[in-house]
Amino acid sequence: MTDTSVKRTLGTCYYPEHWPQEMWQDDAKRMVEAGLTWVRIGEFAWSLLEPTPGSYDFDWLDKAIACLGGAGLQVVLGTPTATPPRWMIDKYPDMLAVDRDGKPRKFGSRRHYCFSHEGYKAECARIVTELAKRYGQNPHVAAWQTDNEYGCHDTTISYSSAAKSAFQEWCRIQYSGADNNGDIAALNKAWGNVFWSMSYAAFEDIDLPNLTVTEPNPAHSLAFRQFTSDQVVAFNRLQVEIIRAHSSAPIAHNYMGRITDFDHFAVGEDLDIASWDSYPLGFLADRAGASEAHQKDFMRQGDPDFQAFHHDLYRSVGKGRLWVMEQQPGPVNWAPYNPDPLPGMVRLWTWEAFAHGAEAVLYFRWRQFPAAQEQLHAGLMRPDNVESAGYYEAKQVAEELKTADGAAAMQAEVAIIFDYDADAAWDIQPHNTDTSYFAVVMDHYRALRKLGLNIDIISSDAALDGYKLIVAPGLIFMSESLKQRLAQIEAQLVIGPRAASRVEQMQTPNPLPPALPNLDVTVIRLDSYREDMPVRLSEAGHAVCYCEVLDTAETALLTKETGEAIAITNGHISYVGAILDEAALRYLYTEICATADIQTLDMPDGVRRRQTTTEEFWFNYASEARQIADGTIEPAGVLRKVK
Amino acid sequence: MTDTSVKRTLGTCYYPEHWPQEMWQDDAKRMVEAGLTWVRIGEFAWSLLEPTPGSYDFDWLDKAIACLGGAGLQVVLGTPTATPPRWMIDKYPDMLAVDRDGKPRKFGSRRHYCFSHEGYKAECARIVTELAKRYGQNPHVAAWQTDNEYGCHDTTISYSSAAKSAFQEWCRIQYSGADNNGDIAALNKAWGNVFWSMSYAAFEDIDLPNLTVTEPNPAHSLAFRQFTSDQVVAFNRLQVEIIRAHSSAPIAHNYMGRITDFDHFAVGEDLDIASWDSYPLGFLADRAGASEAHQKDFMRQGDPDFQAFHHDLYRSVGKGRLWVMEQQPGPVNWAPYNPDPLPGMVRLWTWEAFAHGAEAVLYFRWRQFPAAQEQLHAGLMRPDNVESAGYYEAKQVAEELKTADGAAAMQAEVAIIFDYDADAAWDIQPHNTDTSYFAVVMDHYRALRKLGLNIDIISSDAALDGYKLIVAPGLIFMSESLKQRLAQIEAQLVIGPRAASRVEQMQTPNPLPPALPNLDVTVIRLDSYREDMPVRLSEAGHAVCYCEVLDTAETALLTKETGEAIAITNGHISYVGAILDEAALRYLYTEICATADIQTLDMPDGVRRRQTTTEEFWFNYASEARQIADGTIEPAGVLRKVK
Amino acid sequence: MTDTSVKRTLGTCYYPEHWPQEMWQDDAKRMVEAGLTWVRIGEFAWSLLEPTPGSYDFDWLDKAIACLGGAGLQVVLGTPTATPPRWMIDKYPDMLAVDRDGKPRKFGSRRHYCFSHEGYKAECARIVTELAKRYGQNPHVAAWQTDNEYGCHDTTISYSSAAKSAFQEWCRIQYSGADNNGDIAALNKAWGNVFWSMSYAAFEDIDLPNLTVTEPNPAHSLAFRQFTSDQVVAFNRLQVEIIRAHSSAPIAHNYMGRITDFDHFAVGEDLDIASWDSYPLGFLADRAGASEAHQKDFMRQGDPDFQAFHHDLYRSVGKGRLWVMEQQPGPVNWAPYNPDPLPGMVRLWTWEAFAHGAEAVLYFRWRQFPAAQEQLHAGLMRPDNVESAGYYEAKQVAEELKTADGAAAMQAEVAIIFDYDADAAWDIQPHNTDTSYFAVVMDHYRALRKLGLNIDIISSDAALDGYKLIVAPGLIFMSESLKQRLAQIEAQLVIGPRAASRVEQMQTPNPLPPALPNLDVTVIRLDSYREDMPVRLSEAGHAVCYCEVLDTAETALLTKETGEAIAITNGHISYVGAILDEAALRYLYTEICATADIQTLDMPDGVRRRQTTTEEFWFNYASEARQIADGTIEPAGVLRKVK
Repeated sequence: MTDTSVKRTLGTCYYPEHWPQEMWQDDAKRMVEAGLTWVRIGEFAWSLLEPTPGSYDFDWLDKAIACLGGAGLQVVLGTPTATPPRWMIDKYPDMLAVDRDGKPRKFGSRRHYCFSHEGYKAECARIVTELAKRYGQNPHVAAWQTDNEYGCHDTTISYSSAAKSAFQEWCRIQYSGADNNGDIAALNKAWGNVFWSMSYAAFEDIDLPNLTVTEPNPAHSLAFRQFTSDQVVAFNRLQVEIIRAHSSAPIAHNYMGRITDFDHFAVGEDLDIASWDSYPLGFLADRAGASEAHQKDFMRQGDPDFQAFHHDLYRSVGKGRLWVMEQQPGPVNWAPYNPDPLPGMVRLWTWEAFAHGAEAVLYFRWRQFPAAQEQLHAGLMRPDNVESAGYYEAKQVAEELKTADGAAAMQAEVAIIFDYDADAAWDIQPHNTDTSYFAVVMDHYRALRKLGLNIDIISSDAALDGYKLIVAPGLIFMSESLKQRLAQIEAQLVIGPRAASRVEQMQTPNPLPPALPNLDVTVIRLDSYREDMPVRLSEAGHAVCYCEVLDTAETALLTKETGEAIAITNGHISYVGAILDEAALRYLYTEICATADIQTLDMPDGVRRRQTTTEEFWFNYASEARQIADGTIEPAGVLRKVK
Repeated sequence: MTDTSVKRTLGTCYYPEHWPQEMWQDDAKRMVEAGLTWVRIGEFAWSLLEPTPGSYDFDWLDKAIACLGGAGLQVVLGTPTATPPRWMIDKYPDMLAVDRDGKPRKFGSRRHYCFSHEGYKAECARIVTELAKRYGQNPHVAAWQTDNEYGCHDTTISYSSAAKSAFQEWCRIQYSGADNNGDIAALNKAWGNVFWSMSYAAFEDIDLPNLTVTEPNPAHSLAFRQFTSDQVVAFNRLQVEIIRAHSSAPIAHNYMGRITDFDHFAVGEDLDIASWDSYPLGFLADRAGASEAHQKDFMRQGDPDFQAFHHDLYRSVGKGRLWVMEQQPGPVNWAPYNPDPLPGMVRLWTWEAFAHGAEAVLYFRWRQFPAAQEQLHAGLMRPDNVESAGYYEAKQVAEELKTADGAAAMQAEVAIIFDYDADAAWDIQPHNTDTSYFAVVMDHYRALRKLGLNIDIISSDAALDGYKLIVAPGLIFMSESLKQRLAQIEAQLVIGPRAASRVEQMQTPNPLPPALPNLDVTVIRLDSYREDMPVRLSEAGHAVCYCEVLDTAETALLTKETGEAIAITNGHISYVGAILDEAALRYLYTEICATADIQTLDMPDGVRRRQTTTEEFWFNYASEARQIADGTIEPAGVLRKVK
Repeated sequence: MTDTSVKRTLGTCYYPEHWPQEMWQDDAKRMVEAGLTWVRIGEFAWSLLEPTPGSYDFDWLDKAIACLGGAGLQVVLGTPTATPPRWMIDKYPDMLAVDRDGKPRKFGSRRHYCFSHEGYKAECARIVTELAKRYGQNPHVAAWQTDNEYGCHDTTISYSSAAKSAFQEWCRIQYSGADNNGDIAALNKAWGNVFWSMSYAAFEDIDLPNLTVTEPNPAHSLAFRQFTSDQVVAFNRLQVEIIRAHSSAPIAHNYMGRITDFDHFAVGEDLDIASWDSYPLGFLADRAGASEAHQKDFMRQGDPDFQAFHHDLYRSVGKGRLWVMEQQPGPVNWAPYNPDPLPGMVRLWTWEAFAHGAEAVLYFRWRQFPAAQEQLHAGLMRPDNVESAGYYEAKQVAEELKTADGAAAMQAEVAIIFDYDADAAWDIQPHNTDTSYFAVVMDHYRALRKLGLNIDIISSDAALDGYKLIVAPGLIFMSESLKQRLAQIEAQLVIGPRAASRVEQMQTPNPLPPALPNLDVTVIRLDSYREDMPVRLSEAGHAVCYCEVLDTAETALLTKETGEAIAITNGHISYVGAILDEAALRYLYTEICATADIQTLDMPDGVRRRQTTTEEFWFNYASEARQIADGTIEPAGVLRKVK
């Protein structure tokens, strides 16, 4: 145990506005009895706080905070900006986001706003100011949450007229000329608009890249993606600055799983804590990108690596401070299938979050509300106020925490670089309909986890010290300084495919990529093919979907059966010019970890290991018991060994 | 034979406006020669009857009716409101329905109107008044049909501005306060609008539930579905009241197969006869929900239970009076595949309708029209005025009818409750992407039919007397009075899954469902999972897609292999907390029928049995001969035994 | 060798505007060194030629032509009308095409115009006039190209208001009455608008056939398709007439593969050369209609018949003059998968074009541009100006051409009739969701090619002399004169299915089809069924998807196992009333070729043969070596034997 050790706490999400005031006291008492520390409230309550424009009602919230705080709970207060009231739409009919087809995204659920609408942003500033002033010094308000789940329901990108104007202005600033008034010729050149006569005479000519006859210029698309991300950052920063002016409590946002259409690192820069909403079963079908067979194996458990990946990613986004703001407590309602979790999984998911460095895990939600969109989403309490199965698992964790000291997340031996611009570029130009950046990165992460390793996920700006192995799959953009930094460290590096294959606004660089210092390899041609026609490798496994033709004089690590090298190495740098399947990745990383002096251990199917500074955890995601060195681990089993 | 015996008659649908007047006389003569009694006309002829606004031309229709009636045929006269003329769109550009995406559904085919448009409804009242006045006492006009196929082409639901205004008014009436002026707070509370700040300040705030960012409030969706159904009822009633004022002939509407988006029982209340349009091959792929294997087995015959189900359903909707207004007479044109029926099937379909209580079966259509949308849809006559294969099968039935007295449909021993609100609720909140209410009800119906049973399909308001077994699969809404009525009868009851799981506007009840008198069972959690991951049962078969976790002290009927009961029983009431596959249903109903003293008989594949008061029918839908107790039944064979 | 022999030449597509002027000279030099004759330029350069409205800049183009021409290259100059500049949209906001859903197809890529917009057509006339005047007598401009790839990106059909007005006027002209002012009653009758009250009172009532509630009248759809085709013809003719007024160089257009939504024969009438853009790998998945297994077998080679088909089709469209204006030179970027071609295929594709009569093959493009939409589309040069793999194959062909005299395409013994109206009719009324006209014609073409035959593809107006076998699969429209011409020739004829099944605007004829002189066969009923339920034939193979019930007294060629004839023959005419699989087609054509005294030879899998007047070519599309009579032919092998 060191100074950096972390106290592990539990909590829940609570909606006092859903229930009669008479129930609040008992609810608070039962939360404390269950061993909970945190209660998040308020994030969807705008219509209660401001029933008509400019007329506030904070009385109920005052009472709720007093009641919860009085019972010994610490409050996380959410800003309600994800659910503007109905009257807001009358005030700003054009504040609604617009979808790719040009249809407005109407009132009637949530997140019905465009990040670029200045009028709505002013309203957000106003309500957040009111809340921050009133509760900024409240002793029970121990943390803040901005908005709710940016990007959920595909709400980052909007094709509204507000977005169009803001995008034109954003472009003007990107290409500000000598007179600071925008140099449209510079933009035309950077985007390659000479192709197909796409040049603009003025920034006002630039439309949003939807509804074009065939695909728009990828430079246009990338600029729009970067602009959109910047709008999210600005929206969040506006709230953070207001809250900070009135409160010293830490500020978090609750991110979602596998949403990559804005730069979470950039948003995270302004926040104190990164939290996320973890729904392992809901995410399995939609977001984990799992095969059908994999989905069947883990139907009631979730993907064994998806949660860990996001814990590791958001720990980095949070500069070390990680929470799970919403933890699935039982069956949910919003996925195509909504299975009952395997008994024990709620406990496993919670412990896994702690093993990956979480300070707090809050279950969503205290009690199932018997109406509206999420009425079939379980809570710790059933709608009839009886404890659910999830309640008992949460309470078990609370008991276990009494004798399990928190431990710091230790730096891993392995780091994976994750880059939101690379995701955007890959999304815009996949070059093979079956691939994605996220899936490629996840494949590498999974392969390393199956060798029993701890992994840090870092941004491309992060410090690289202290790692034995750094992996950068699919890193389409690599600045010269990053190339230099990578060349200079001693860690083993694994780079590619598509590494450094684009510069500024999607241009192909000259000389051709990857153009890495001290590595004689050039990608001279691309080969993209059907997923069911994988190219067999001599060493192990296959190159799937995508493979590069390399001009190289370096030592081959992986070769096609026809003899061409597709992965090569020189000293501490290796370049992989293909998407690899599981067997090929296992072979590759077994070799490279040996070189890097990293001890690996083959994990049994569904079993994963995670170490903190003082502990070794084993988790069994399989639906059957598994043998490990220390004996048998039951389905949904958690084994915690203090080192 | 009793007083309630029914004369069985045949007919056809005819479009005199498609053919030169010189042909009418011969057509009528040949209809009579074929043994037909009925001829339906007029239902798409508005542009002929009123070529320009307010200027009528009834002359041709007068002549057609005189010609057909003079030949000895009885006329069913249709109101032409499914096909408003082109000039109507100039008059009311906003009368067009609007689809979910906000696009108008334009002129150029049929059913191009929104049920909520008051201007169009006034036009309908006007043309129906003209027809009723002119032909109400015409001796040849022996029945009426309102409009044509309500709901066909997904035309029940419209997101037009007319629909929006009407829906707001409908909501106001639903929640009329003390001043009779609408209590928006009551609506907000009933819908649970506190969730996600969705509350309205006024009824004018309520938009239609389309184009929301994520799913709308299910209460909102259910209200809109109920409103929409009410609009169809009102539209139909308007015509019925006008016709009744001028004619004593019975009034029918021709419903379609598997259209459930309005309440057919409610529409049927205003009519004398329920008829439907039976296209067994066209429906197989699109509407019967059949597996690929099943579709292959019955490609040229149709689903063995789909027609029977609708006969039984619409006999109930028609308060005992059932017609088939359009009977497929050969290959049609509008399905993805349009096979030539197995020889004999046109006869089989006709006899099956009679066995299920039909008074009349009319073939669509007399002669194939050589142009426009249905030019590849067979008739009894080919386009070149030569008899088609279907003609000869129809004529054979006409011959057979001469010696086959009509018989009353006798009350079955088994009733299935079918409820349109349950369908709406299930559609809004399936909780598993692979399920539907219709499919679940059909599975139970099919299982009982495969045991050789007659079945009545009844509404949830219907009398329950005289049945030995009453089945209510998926009955999401159950009023207290229905619960009491079911508790008090002596018949065996099979209820669930999802029974009584919602009250008024989709709220979850407290205590939790099903809360049935004298049955100790509570659904405490839901489990929804992939169709290809069925849960094996100890007794037989599987629970597929959906299973409830039951808190119960009753006797188990079906249990998971892991021991939990998923179907339980106490006295005459059984609750089934799962969607069951064929084997599980067969096991269940074999057991329950034994208890209920109902004699069952396993049907050979593709063979079905149906009894009237005086007859026993056997039908062979299989493409091979089958052995039954009385010998061999050929493919497409009909065996009629007088008891 | 005869006078009609053709010199075989190579070329490339070049974009001087993409590169600094300093590079042009070297580029031109290397083109000549590679053995190229032609260089196509200018077709996307409007914004360079007219940067602001009415202000021209031809200077750069003058220099480019001088530079290229000076190096010894011949220039093909393209009109830039496929890429109107951004300022054009300000001038004519309504010039954008509109998609089926009513959405505008916006600026930001290419082909963003509606063929019916008169304002845009005037602009096109203006820029073409400028170009024709300036370069019409330029000695280096040796050919012209109009626009670029009509119909690419689904741009033939537009539902804009310009299209609507033009369509109404087109209809008026089609049905011009005695006063030459349009006879709407004639249109109503021809279309069968009496059905469903669809009659119009005036031509202004006619809307475009999109967004109707259910399918529009097929007559309406066919008229709109024919109108749309006529708009393309008129658009192209406008440019041709202007160019001809100023230049005597031949004029071409570069068609695409498998685009059938306008009549290429009609466009071709106005041109001197038909060229097309051949992307064998890009087309494999999307357009060749190949099965998954077939796609896997030929993933790196392309479909063995797709290119040949288009060579044969466009040789006919070009009245004997065929070019490949864009030849795939390596991996492309725009398909779902973009494989690296099997080594040798670029050479094979080139030689195959020459074997089918091409005068010139131009590789797209000289050098890969490092930005914009096609930055991942290979060229002969890599983006870093190094020769690509494709360069060396092109250069090899150039070397080989030095000793391979050009030869005339000789008339084949077999002709297939291809008809764009039939394609439109089949598309509007497929009667089975799995079929298409193109696929049916391709099946017949492939079957004949697998028997080693040369094939001519001809229009239904073409001369029929000199053939031993004429095949007309799926020829829905057959004029009386065509029927008579076919009856009178001596060649074997194979006609059907669906032959002559519609007359003018999609009406079913009476007497029923095919109504061929001297052939006693009538289609009395249609049978359309699932592709996975084929009907087995007694002789060989199956009837798939679609089969007709024939009333016939002729000799059976093919019969169902149940005995009914589905193909019959009398003298030199055979009628095939079904879609046949490969085995059935092989049987059929083996029989018929024997009768016709045509020598056939079974081709090994993937091998095809093609003869010119003086040569016999063998091409191996398989990825393995194949044995032929003359020995072994390697993968991607080309065997050229001089007779």
